[in-house]
Amino acid sequence: MEYDFGMVGLGVMGRNLLLNIADHGFSVVGLDLDPVKAAALEAEAESGKPIKGTTSIQEFVDSLQKPRALMLLVPAGKAVDAAITNLLPYLEPGDIVIDGGNSYFPDTNRRILELQEKNLHFFGMGISGGEKGARYGPSMMPGGDRQAYERLRPVFEAVAAKVDGEPCVSYLGNGSAGNYVKMVHNGIEYGIMQLIAETYDLLKRGVGNSHEEIQHMFEEWNGSEVQSFLVEITGQILKKTDDVTGQPLVNLISDRARQKGTGKWTSQNAMDLQVPLPTVDIAVTMRDMSAYKEERVLAAQSLAIKPTSSEANAEWHELENKLRNAFYFAMLVTYAQGLVQLRVASDTYQYELELQEVAKIWRGGCIIRAACLEDIRKAFAVNPALPNLLLDPIIGQELLNRQEDMRTIVKLAIERGIPVPAMMTALAYFDAYRSETLPTNLIQAQRDYFGAHTYERIDQPGIFHTDWD
Amino acid sequence: MEYDFGMVGLGVMGRNLLLNIADHGFSVVGLDLDPVKAAALEAEAESGKPIKGTTSIQEFVDSLQKPRALMLLVPAGKAVDAAITNLLPYLEPGDIVIDGGNSYFPDTNRRILELQEKNLHFFGMGISGGEKGARYGPSMMPGGDRQAYERLRPVFEAVAAKVDGEPCVSYLGNGSAGNYVKMVHNGIEYGIMQLIAETYDLLKRGVGNSHEEIQHMFEEWNGSEVQSFLVEITGQILKKTDDVTGQPLVNLISDRARQKGTGKWTSQNAMDLQVPLPTVDIAVTMRDMSAYKEERVLAAQSLAIKPTSSEANAEWHELENKLRNAFYFAMLVTYAQGLVQLRVASDTYQYELELQEVAKIWRGGCIIRAACLEDIRKAFAVNPALPNLLLDPIIGQELLNRQEDMRTIVKLAIERGIPVPAMMTALAYFDAYRSETLPTNLIQAQRDYFGAHTYERIDQPGIFHTDWD
Repeated sequence: MEYDFGMVGLGVMGRNLLLNIADHGFSVVGLDLDPVKAAALEAEAESGKPIKGTTSIQEFVDSLQKPRALMLLVPAGKAVDAAITNLLPYLEPGDIVIDGGNSYFPDTNRRILELQEKNLHFFGMGISGGEKGARYGPSMMPGGDRQAYERLRPVFEAVAAKVDGEPCVSYLGNGSAGNYVKMVHNGIEYGIMQLIAETYDLLKRGVGNSHEEIQHMFEEWNGSEVQSFLVEITGQILKKTDDVTGQPLVNLISDRARQKGTGKWTSQNAMDLQVPLPTVDIAVTMRDMSAYKEERVLAAQSLAIKPTSSEANAEWHELENKLRNAFYFAMLVTYAQGLVQLRVASDTYQYELELQEVAKIWRGGCIIRAACLEDIRKAFAVNPALPNLLLDPIIGQELLNRQEDMRTIVKLAIERGIPVPAMMTALAYFDAYRSETLPTNLIQAQRDYFGAHTYERIDQPGIFHTDWD
Repeated sequence: MEYDFGMVGLGVMGRNLLLNIADHGFSVVGLDLDPVKAAALEAEAESGKPIKGTTSIQEFVDSLQKPRALMLLVPAGKAVDAAITNLLPYLEPGDIVIDGGNSYFPDTNRRILELQEKNLHFFGMGISGGEKGARYGPSMMPGGDRQAYERLRPVFEAVAAKVDGEPCVSYLGNGSAGNYVKMVHNGIEYGIMQLIAETYDLLKRGVGNSHEEIQHMFEEWNGSEVQSFLVEITGQILKKTDDVTGQPLVNLISDRARQKGTGKWTSQNAMDLQVPLPTVDIAVTMRDMSAYKEERVLAAQSLAIKPTSSEANAEWHELENKLRNAFYFAMLVTYAQGLVQLRVASDTYQYELELQEVAKIWRGGCIIRAACLEDIRKAFAVNPALPNLLLDPIIGQELLNRQEDMRTIVKLAIERGIPVPAMMTALAYFDAYRSETLPTNLIQAQRDYFGAHTYERIDQPGIFHTDWD
C-alpha cells in the first residue's frame, strides 16, 4: 500500500496532526525511532483507517506515494538537521520535506539550499494551535516553492481550521516565509499574553478586585470586541480550582515565566530590520524580569508599594468598560507592530507576503486568533500596500475612540504602582507614530556634538556638521 | 629612534589620541596608508616632540620599542581584520595589539584566540569621549591579558581623563570585557539621550514652553544632581542659532535619528542573557521609529494630537522641579539596568568585572559621565555583589523620594499625548522589580493551557500539567 502523507516524529503534536490528516480521508504513515510512540499512533487510530506507525526509515520512505510528502515534527535545531541527514539517502528527486516545527528562519533558508542541491523541496511551515489545534484544526503557515505547494495543498486545506468555510492555511511566500510569519505570530502572542497579565495585575493588586470579579470579567469580555482565544482561555484558567486546596489554581503557580525563544527572536530580528516592536520587546523583557524572583522579594521590602486601595471599585462597571477599551487599543497596536515587521521582512528577504492572507489564516486555529483579525484582513484587502494598520481609516477610528480610556487606564496603573509596560508601549507607539515631528532632532544634534556624526537639515539638502561648543 | 607607542589609523580619533599620548611625554609613531593623514599628524605635532607619521608598515613596526604596543583605530569590522592581517608578518612574540574601536565583542574573542596562536597579545578597548576626549582625556575600557596590561598601564593612565586625581582607565577583565563594557556604555548612552529627548518634547509640544525656557532649564539642570555630559551639551546645543536664519539650529535638524548599531547590540545581547533592559530597548526603537517620517506625517493628520495647552505653565517652577526629579529617577534606573547586564555578562563570559571599577572610570571622560556615577561607585564599593542598584539603600531612597514626581510627569505626558516610552519603561521597571509577585503566573498557566509547557507551583516542588478546559 502507498500512503499519501508521512510524519517523522510522533510526539503529541506529530501524532495528533497525523490523526487529523487521516480523519480527512488521507492514508498516513508515521516514523519514530521510539517503538512506544510508533505503536501509540496505531493504537489511537480508529480501526479500519489507513494509519501505520513504524520505526524503520526504509519502510517509512518506501511506503510513501511519489513524489513523497513527509513532515518533520521534531524539536527545532539539531534534531531537524539529524532527521534530514537520516532521511536523505532514501529520498528521490521531487520529494517534499516539510519542517513543521518552530525553526529559526535562517536555518530554514540554509536547509532549502542544501536540499535544492539534491532536487528535493524543503518547506518551513509554522503550525499554531497547540495539541488540540493539531488534532482538530490548526492554523498553518507554509513557505517554500510555490509549485511544489500544489502537492500539499489538498492535505493542508482539508486539515486546517476553518473560518467562514475558508481554511486557515495559505501558501505564504518564498524561502523561510512560513517560519518567519510563525515567529512574528509568536511575538504577537507574547505581547497579548503580557497585556492580559497586566490587566489581571492591575485589577488584582492595583484596584483590589476579587478573583471572581476578574474571572467573570474575562469571561464576559470574550463576548465583546476583544473576543480571542487568549481572552477565552484566561476566563477558563481563572475558573479552575486546585483539587487539594480549593484555591484558584493560578494563585498556586510560580510567577517565573518561561520562554522557548521565539519571542526573543522576533524582537532581535525587528531590531535588525529597524522595525519598532516595543510591545513584543517588553513582553520578552517581563518574562526575563519574572526570573529575578529572589531580588524582587527583597525589593518589595525596601521599595514598598503603596497598599492597595479599592476606591475605584465604586465605579467598577465604568472601569471595566475603560479597561476593555484600553486592552482592545493595545491589542490592535500589537498586531500593527507585528504586521509592519512582516511587511519590512517581506521586502528585505523577498518573501512576497500578502498580509491579507496572513490575517486570514490567523483568524482561526492559532493562538492569536481574535475577532479583530477580520477587520485587519479587510484593511489589507482594501489596501494591500497599507504601511501600518494605524493608517487604516476603520482601525484608526477604533483607536481614536478608545485612546482616552487607554490614557485613563495607564494613569490609574501608574498611580497604583502596578507595572503595565506593554500597555504603556502600545500607547507610546500610537503617540509617536502620529507625531509628525519627534524630538530625535535633538539626538542627532547630540551625536554630532560628541561624535561628529553629522546631521541632515529640514530646509536644505546635504550633510552638515557643526562645531557646537 | 625607538618609539613608545604606535597608532594604526590616523583619522581624527587616532590622531587626537596619539597627540594626547605625546603630550604626556611618550614618543609616538602613527601609520596610515593615506599619506595626507600621515603628514597631518606631523603637521599638528608641536615642534620638538617625538611624533612621527609614516605610510610604511615596515618602518612603523621597526620603529617601535619591543615588546611593541600598537593600537588600531580603524572602523569596526573588516577593517580591523585587514589591519591585523597586514601587520602580522612584521610582529614578534610578546607584541601587543590594541583595538580601540567599537568592535563587536565576539569578534574580539575570535581575534584574541587568533593572535594567541602567534604568541601575540590582543586587547579590545572601548574608548569614549569623542574627538575632544581623545585629544584631552577619554575614558578607556581595556580588556585582555592582565599581565600584558602592565606594559600599557603607564601610557593609558597618563592620557585618560582624571576625576579626583584618579585616571578614568582600569584593567576591566578577561577576553572581550573591554568591548563589552563599552557596548553597554553606549546602550546606557542611547537610554539617557532618549530620556533627554522626551523631556524636551514634553515641554515643547506637551506643555508649550518656549525654546528659551527649555534651554535655560537644561543649563540650570547641569548645576543639580542630574549634572552630566549629556545634559550639559543639551544646554549648549539648544543655545546654538543657525547663522543664516537666526533660528535655533536644532529646529532645522531632521528628526530621522541614525545609529551605528552598538545600542542594538546591547539590547539584543541583553535578550540573549535574559536581562531586562527596557529603557535601552525603547531608545533603540525610537530611533527606528524616527525613520518612518512619511508615515508619521500621514498619521499626524488622520490621528490628530490634541492641541498643545499651556495651562501647566502657570506652575512652571513646580513642574520643572518634578521634571528634574523624574529625569533623575529614570537616569538612575537606566544605569541600574545596564549594570545588571554587566554583572550577568561577567558571570556568563567569565569577564571577572568589578562594577566599582566600571563606575569609577565612567565618572570622567566618557559620554555617560555624570555626577551620580560617584554614588553608583560607592554602592558597589560597599557591596561588590550588589545585584541591582535599586537594592542599594541610598539609591533606593533617591528613587523613593522621586517616584511620585516620576508618576506625575508620565501622567502629564499621557494626558498631552506626548510619547515618553523611556520614562515609562523606567517607571515600569521600578514597579516590576519591587513586585514580590508578578502576574506571570497567568502567563505560565496560558502556556500550559495551549502548549502543555507545564508549570511550577509555589506550594510544592515538581513540574505540573493541568487539563484546563
